[in-house]
Amino acid sequence: MLHLQSESAKRWLAQVDQSLDEILIDHAHCERKAASTAMNLMNAYTDNRPLCVEMTRIVEEELEHFHMVLDVLDARGIPFRRLASGPYGRKLNQLVRPSEPLRAVDRLLVASLIEARSCERFRLLADHVRQRDSELADFYAGLFESEARHHTTYVQIAEHFQPRDDVRQRLDELSAQEAEIIAGGCDLPRMHS
Amino acid sequence: MLHLQSESAKRWLAQVDQSLDEILIDHAHCERKAASTAMNLMNAYTDNRPLCVEMTRIVEEELEHFHMVLDVLDARGIPFRRLASGPYGRKLNQLVRPSEPLRAVDRLLVASLIEARSCERFRLLADHVRQRDSELADFYAGLFESEARHHTTYVQIAEHFQPRDDVRQRLDELSAQEAEIIAGGCDLPRMHS
Repeated sequence: MLHLQSESAKRWLAQVDQSLDEILIDHAHCERKAASTAMNLMNAYTDNRPLCVEMTRIVEEELEHFHMVLDVLDARGIPFRRLASGPYGRKLNQLVRPSEPLRAVDRLLVASLIEARSCERFRLLADHVRQRDSELADFYAGLFESEARHHTTYVQIAEHFQPRDDVRQRLDELSAQEAEIIAGGCDLPRMHS
Repeated sequence: MLHLQSESAKRWLAQVDQSLDEILIDHAHCERKAASTAMNLMNAYTDNRPLCVEMTRIVEEELEHFHMVLDVLDARGIPFRRLASGPYGRKLNQLVRPSEPLRAVDRLLVASLIEARSCERFRLLADHVRQRDSELADFYAGLFESEARHHTTYVQIAEHFQPRDDVRQRLDELSAQEAEIIAGGCDLPRMHS
């Protein structure tokens, strides 16, 4: 359903154990950046009405999640602060082909894969902390569904720009590259490290 | 209340009479761009919590207005399409000073002035078309209040970055330049032409 070609390595759960606070802060930034991504797509393809309708929904949901994560940080006494970004998003965005409509397809599919990986990691995080922190486990279990829905929405909107078979083939290609990028990891503890 | 130093020229109402459809299309773009502006400010100053709270509200309201204007276009059989931008926003943004915190103050005050001018023009447009198009007049009268509120919000948030007196003095300066820019006009019929 999520079109991911790998499961997250145990290495990441070691980062969760060691630096949960920083990963939570990064998660807040991820939600804000996800809202921005949807807004940027709406700016770029503003004459596509279904895209505008769906991107508006995603902006609203991601901003709601951003504030939910800020509330979690507040409740835990973790000060929100800027963080250096890991390489995950940058490397994925470098795969976007420059000319339209391929550019639109790739931007949407990259967004879909980031949502998919977030989704996979939310579930992993929820399961991992369940025993010792059921409140946080419930929080992440609650976010799982909307990330999966956003993944599907982005893939469906990509099919407005190219035939379905072409989109699916490109999704396979990008998904293989996403698996390589996420396997590369990052020493900074991040949601996508 | 709106800190504007001029009233819109009758010249603009002539453009409204001649090219209302195009001005309505431009208005839809203005709402989308206003949402983007608030999102960009949240990205730039994400560690300012009150700013994030207020920008989130503005993003949501502007996107709601964007879709309301699209509905008005649909109801009138006006196809939504891309438009070349007029020079108003670009010229205002050129006034933003480059170094922080002055840059933050200026970005917020420029946003506040664009909201103020929209507000003034919404009322003018509503009054102008009232006799022949009460539906459109009601629509614009209904948007007036939120634009005025956004203006005030932007000015208040600017006071998080500099003392109130400095902000008010800069608002006067920028407002004087805004009056010059809007007086310069633009041959393309736009919400801020």
